[in-house]
Amino acid sequence: MNVVITVDPRDGRRRSTDLHETDESRLEAIAGRASRAAQWLSGLGRVGRAEMLDRIAASLESRRVDLVAAAEAETGLSHPRLDQELTRAALQFRMFGDVLRDGAYVEAVIDHAADTPLGPGPDLRRMLVPLGPVAVFGASNFPFAFSVAGGDTASALAAGCPTVLKAHPSHPLTSHASADAIESAIRGMGGPDGVITIVYGEQAGRSLVRHPAIRAAALTGSVGAARAIQAAIDERPDPIPLYAELSSVNPIVVLPGAAVDRGEQIAEGLFASFTASGGQLCTKPGLAFIPSDPGGEHLVDTLRARVASAGGTILLNERIRDAYENRATAFERAGARVSARPQVDPGEGFTVAPTLLEVGLPGLTAEIADECFGPLMVVVRYRDVVELDAVLATVPPSLTGSIHRGPEDDNDVVRRLVDVLAARSGRIVFDGYPTGVRVSWAQHHGGPWPSTNAVHTSVGATSIRRFLRPLAWQDAPEWVLPEELRDEYVAIPRRVDGRLESKLE
Amino acid sequence: MNVVITVDPRDGRRRSTDLHETDESRLEAIAGRASRAAQWLSGLGRVGRAEMLDRIAASLESRRVDLVAAAEAETGLSHPRLDQELTRAALQFRMFGDVLRDGAYVEAVIDHAADTPLGPGPDLRRMLVPLGPVAVFGASNFPFAFSVAGGDTASALAAGCPTVLKAHPSHPLTSHASADAIESAIRGMGGPDGVITIVYGEQAGRSLVRHPAIRAAALTGSVGAARAIQAAIDERPDPIPLYAELSSVNPIVVLPGAAVDRGEQIAEGLFASFTASGGQLCTKPGLAFIPSDPGGEHLVDTLRARVASAGGTILLNERIRDAYENRATAFERAGARVSARPQVDPGEGFTVAPTLLEVGLPGLTAEIADECFGPLMVVVRYRDVVELDAVLATVPPSLTGSIHRGPEDDNDVVRRLVDVLAARSGRIVFDGYPTGVRVSWAQHHGGPWPSTNAVHTSVGATSIRRFLRPLAWQDAPEWVLPEELRDEYVAIPRRVDGRLESKLE
Repeated sequence: MNVVITVDPRDGRRRSTDLHETDESRLEAIAGRASRAAQWLSGLGRVGRAEMLDRIAASLESRRVDLVAAAEAETGLSHPRLDQELTRAALQFRMFGDVLRDGAYVEAVIDHAADTPLGPGPDLRRMLVPLGPVAVFGASNFPFAFSVAGGDTASALAAGCPTVLKAHPSHPLTSHASADAIESAIRGMGGPDGVITIVYGEQAGRSLVRHPAIRAAALTGSVGAARAIQAAIDERPDPIPLYAELSSVNPIVVLPGAAVDRGEQIAEGLFASFTASGGQLCTKPGLAFIPSDPGGEHLVDTLRARVASAGGTILLNERIRDAYENRATAFERAGARVSARPQVDPGEGFTVAPTLLEVGLPGLTAEIADECFGPLMVVVRYRDVVELDAVLATVPPSLTGSIHRGPEDDNDVVRRLVDVLAARSGRIVFDGYPTGVRVSWAQHHGGPWPSTNAVHTSVGATSIRRFLRPLAWQDAPEWVLPEELRDEYVAIPRRVDGRLESKLE
Repeated sequence: MNVVITVDPRDGRRRSTDLHETDESRLEAIAGRASRAAQWLSGLGRVGRAEMLDRIAASLESRRVDLVAAAEAETGLSHPRLDQELTRAALQFRMFGDVLRDGAYVEAVIDHAADTPLGPGPDLRRMLVPLGPVAVFGASNFPFAFSVAGGDTASALAAGCPTVLKAHPSHPLTSHASADAIESAIRGMGGPDGVITIVYGEQAGRSLVRHPAIRAAALTGSVGAARAIQAAIDERPDPIPLYAELSSVNPIVVLPGAAVDRGEQIAEGLFASFTASGGQLCTKPGLAFIPSDPGGEHLVDTLRARVASAGGTILLNERIRDAYENRATAFERAGARVSARPQVDPGEGFTVAPTLLEVGLPGLTAEIADECFGPLMVVVRYRDVVELDAVLATVPPSLTGSIHRGPEDDNDVVRRLVDVLAARSGRIVFDGYPTGVRVSWAQHHGGPWPSTNAVHTSVGATSIRRFLRPLAWQDAPEWVLPEELRDEYVAIPRRVDGRLESKLE
């Protein structure tokens, strides 16, 4: 069995760990344990699972110092950023606790027996039930919040699905420590092994999604990774859903009035948004459309100065560093000129310089209108807002689209741009930046391909829906039904005979 | 262009129609019109679309005589059955009108700006919006309710998605007449061409799902058809969802107490359920597990006599007739013995005899535990209920699983069987039969592969979810928002700052 290696991106040093890539026989045992754990998890019920999620959040927080230190050494992300990310991870587990206690997520519907135009209709009751064990692929860029202790795990466990995690090779020790914190909370409730388990290695990831026990897979990663996992799934006799959150350009339009009204402030906001976390965020703005007028000129001057005076940033791993540099070179070859790029000492690790590129609207080729993972943004200068509609319709669909408006911008222009962006995005941001994804009930983190491949979200309360399937009971005796579907149950909102009934509190 | 042929299954006669297979240039024009129609359909709003659906229902009913006559000549199904099916089709359109007026289906969620543990959270508002034009493949066995005027069309139009139908080759004239009835209702509201259109021919179906304008596809058909459509979708650069409802064995377990309690009644119920509509229903019970004791013997004797005295039944087309006969022969070769099969005159058309096969539990091979489309059921005789769990776990997942219980049957046995069936079905039926799918809020018509390939339903109010995607607005000015997301809107239930708020009426 191959030993798992960890690399410190701050100095490029590679070290062996005590972990091993997961072989087939171990994977088989893990899948078996996950299947057996499904009954315990489902038996906990909604309120029991909510308590489990709260305990997991507390367990993660109780190990904050060690977890953040492990992640620092494996990701090169800053201590404050990782500290906040752990808070976010704990918040996600707690939010799903709230979702479970609320209970509306099971979508309980009761149709009592009734005469219909087609004859007597039977008693029918429907709710969402867990899919079964699921596979979750950790992301490189969020060692907590989109990895072992991430939102996919939280929503899958909330749904009642045992979760087998494929650790991202960029942070195996953080992954291991996170799983240990989660397992410890589950053991504290008397839970069995297999509620959450972790596998290492590419081959294990492919075998995992081919395993008959696995009922869905979730991935935050690249289009290439998604295609490889889909190819493995396609080898199954029975297809399973792959919920993939992939690539996103996140165009931002600054209208002329906004540039005049608050150009410097927007320049600062753009800089912060495209360089935060080394630009390694799926919501990083990759394209900023800025007018070619004096207001836009001043904005770009400010931004250029800000970038030129910035320091280097450590990227997550060698592959991402190389891809960043290659992509930047490709953009330049395709006609984007360097607007600002400071000199930085690359050092021993994976440090790069932030890069601001610039291109005129007619020069925005398909090659440049593509994601570059890392601290790079392309400023696209436009002469007239009427040019924007057609161009935005050629930018690949994204998780987000943003518009900055000023007091003098025309609402009709805004409405037209919103229509174009809405057709190609999952979230429209007004006068703000797409980074900093709020974890809440209304959040939607998804969009048309290649942003995601599904009509689901991977962030927010409704992401639990990915791991549930409907089940209906016809003329069932009361004692067979889940409590949520019994007549007298009033602890959750339900639809009864076509009418929504509130939860009684 | 190839002329479309229609065949009367009652006498096998083939006739040319005035219709032609849809070529590429016409398909291109259709896709363009569908794209342009999206704005009109969305602009109608929920209440406008509800009115449209009501008008479509009325239009279908106003042409009842002609539509039923067309379907009789193309399907060989009985007049009463087709008459009822048209009622069902109209009911489905009206039900989605109710769904639209209710408005909960848009899943409106508002999170006002608030301080969070991660800092200030923006104002976020989310609801479901139409996917865009969709492709619907009509089924052979329901010329109205799962075809041009079917539930897929009704739910797609309700969602706001222009719908391009691929007509089933078994009933082109019924398809054309149905589309005409629907279009007439839409024109009556001033609607443009392209809200609903119809294409003919296998090649047109494949081209349709490859067309960039098409955002999802829905199919009720065979596993083979689904694989062919998926292969065409896989040629796209951007994957789209395929909602496929495919193959289903629908096991029924009769417990010993039920056989003693009401064996003759169950025999009659089984006969009606497996022969109704020539057994050409996706919910037809294919396997009936009946005890080998005297109660079971009497039930099977009754059933055998009922089948032996039955007449022939006309199947939908030559391919289905041939497949039925081949499959029955294959089941016999695999060890199922003929329990009852009347002599019938095949005549000139596609008439077959209903067939009751029988096998002992140990003889139930994978070959026999499979769907045979048509009036065939396999009785599986078991000695002890403890044998059933393991066997049911090998029957392919189905749309439904059914249990008949008597006063003397043990609840623990029932619970165990429910657990086994629930893991492999979308609907559990107690003391009844899976055919006769109620169209209502709680219905779920779906299940694990090969029953369906998705965690969605193709019948019932929630089937609208297949044609919607979430969209979020961040810090949007009120005038940009859809009315359902404005603060003062109270006509639908919404979740605001984490709390469900009822609709004010």
